[in-house]
Amino acid sequence: MKAVDCAKLLLSRDNFLILTHRNPDGDTLGSAGALCHALRRMGKTAWLFPNPDITDHFRPLVERYLAPGDFAGEYTLAVDIAAETQFPKGFEGKVDLGIDHHPSNSRYASRLLLQEQRASCGEIMLRVIKAMCGNVSKAEADLLYTAVSTDTGCFLYGNTDAECLRAAAELLEYGAENGKLNLYLFRKVSPARIRLEGLINSSLEFYRDGTIVVAIVTREMLQRAGATPDDCDDLANLPGRARGGILSVLIREGEDGSSRISLRSSPEVDCSRICAVFGGGGHAMAAGCTIQAPPTRARDILLEVVNEVWRA
Amino acid sequence: MKAVDCAKLLLSRDNFLILTHRNPDGDTLGSAGALCHALRRMGKTAWLFPNPDITDHFRPLVERYLAPGDFAGEYTLAVDIAAETQFPKGFEGKVDLGIDHHPSNSRYASRLLLQEQRASCGEIMLRVIKAMCGNVSKAEADLLYTAVSTDTGCFLYGNTDAECLRAAAELLEYGAENGKLNLYLFRKVSPARIRLEGLINSSLEFYRDGTIVVAIVTREMLQRAGATPDDCDDLANLPGRARGGILSVLIREGEDGSSRISLRSSPEVDCSRICAVFGGGGHAMAAGCTIQAPPTRARDILLEVVNEVWRA
Repeated sequence: MKAVDCAKLLLSRDNFLILTHRNPDGDTLGSAGALCHALRRMGKTAWLFPNPDITDHFRPLVERYLAPGDFAGEYTLAVDIAAETQFPKGFEGKVDLGIDHHPSNSRYASRLLLQEQRASCGEIMLRVIKAMCGNVSKAEADLLYTAVSTDTGCFLYGNTDAECLRAAAELLEYGAENGKLNLYLFRKVSPARIRLEGLINSSLEFYRDGTIVVAIVTREMLQRAGATPDDCDDLANLPGRARGGILSVLIREGEDGSSRISLRSSPEVDCSRICAVFGGGGHAMAAGCTIQAPPTRARDILLEVVNEVWRA
Repeated sequence: MKAVDCAKLLLSRDNFLILTHRNPDGDTLGSAGALCHALRRMGKTAWLFPNPDITDHFRPLVERYLAPGDFAGEYTLAVDIAAETQFPKGFEGKVDLGIDHHPSNSRYASRLLLQEQRASCGEIMLRVIKAMCGNVSKAEADLLYTAVSTDTGCFLYGNTDAECLRAAAELLEYGAENGKLNLYLFRKVSPARIRLEGLINSSLEFYRDGTIVVAIVTREMLQRAGATPDDCDDLANLPGRARGGILSVLIREGEDGSSRISLRSSPEVDCSRICAVFGGGGHAMAAGCTIQAPPTRARDILLEVVNEVWRA
């Protein structure tokens, strides 16, 4: 389906319930929120399903669009959702239209607008809203900017392409306040998060000439930093900042004496092969698993397997 | 002067020596390097003045354009240089053409292409090179992307506007490898830098309900981290990440028992007024000074002045 056909379809329906994916990020929430606002501008009734996983960080951006408990909706949309495993419960087989950019989209929806080449779902939604309304409102521009910028790490990640930068430029012209949003989304973090990063960064361990970088996060460190679960997003990226590193490892102490392992790598190493040894999985350059041992013991066990799988 | 007139002027001359500013950043080096490459494509002789301040971080990007000792040049260009105080020695009054984006440009050059509204000099250079050559080569695109992205913190800072994002999009289409460059310019840092950030972040001090955030960097911390001067760029931004902070303070221990102070603030506080008390200066939202006392004593002296200048 093309964006213009999607817009026509939306204009022909009413009473929309819009789903976002589990552990919702800026792309699913920003794209869904912008669509909700645009549908209302066209005189429609539209709400976001009140995803229970929304963090305090993102809640203020979409709070006004979250459906009251008694709203069932007549037409169900899924935004930025790759598969039904990423759904809220009870919506399997019930999605009328999906709008997505994941190449792995499992075709769960009756109708589908899928643009796999886009860095963010926000870029697709920009096209849908322009086709539907002829323009983009300031509120929608802010939400779509949130979507586009968060899925690219503020245009830092390798998925950032010319189309994505042009979409962002257009959103600024529609009034998106990127300076203010960037402060909120990327620059400002809680004092507890800063302390936690401090504890992690000052205790990184380097192995095999610095090509393997290990960060350990104990429960005691979380407590010392005063960190809550909201302060723990994307910790796995921290050891990956080290120049010279090829494989980076984050080991997080569990509550039951086990350790949760997150691996990130350059193409030289296949993280998923290492994690498979421990019953975990993921992608070649990002994978995870659990080891039934406390952090330092888990590190030793993991490094033995790394040395077998990845010979220097 | 317009970019197209600048291009015509350049085509009418030869034997260019291109100056970059003191403590050169990605914008002055990237813009100058790209211009040098483009002039050579047009059959000209062109070199960059071998600025002694170039760090190991930026040197690989421009090394091949640095003039040999015996090259004097016939036509001298200044790129991204606001004033003669930012010149290498010996070039005062000798610049034939300036290309710049600083509103404070002191009009030192005989001819001047100044576009004050641009976030980076790289965006102006993109226009000059297109006017001069009709296109942009891959090598020039990489250098101009370096210029545009570094002056905006990879499109994070408040100066990022639609034109800047469009320029970046165009550079990607000319072949700039943003994924690779972003890793080098923004994501990867030395292990010593990570350790230093860790020590700073785990010892931040908060005053007045967290609105004042103080980071102290002692010589002992630099030693423990194994940090060199190259690892110390932009440390003043670290305390400014704390949510709730309005005034952030970096205090760096000097070798002579004094402390070097860097202030950053939101519009509520005028940093330059605080620094003026100690004989320093700068802008309202970023200023610096030196206090003749070791770090913790300097902090106490500074906070007394802050409490006078900025009443809650």
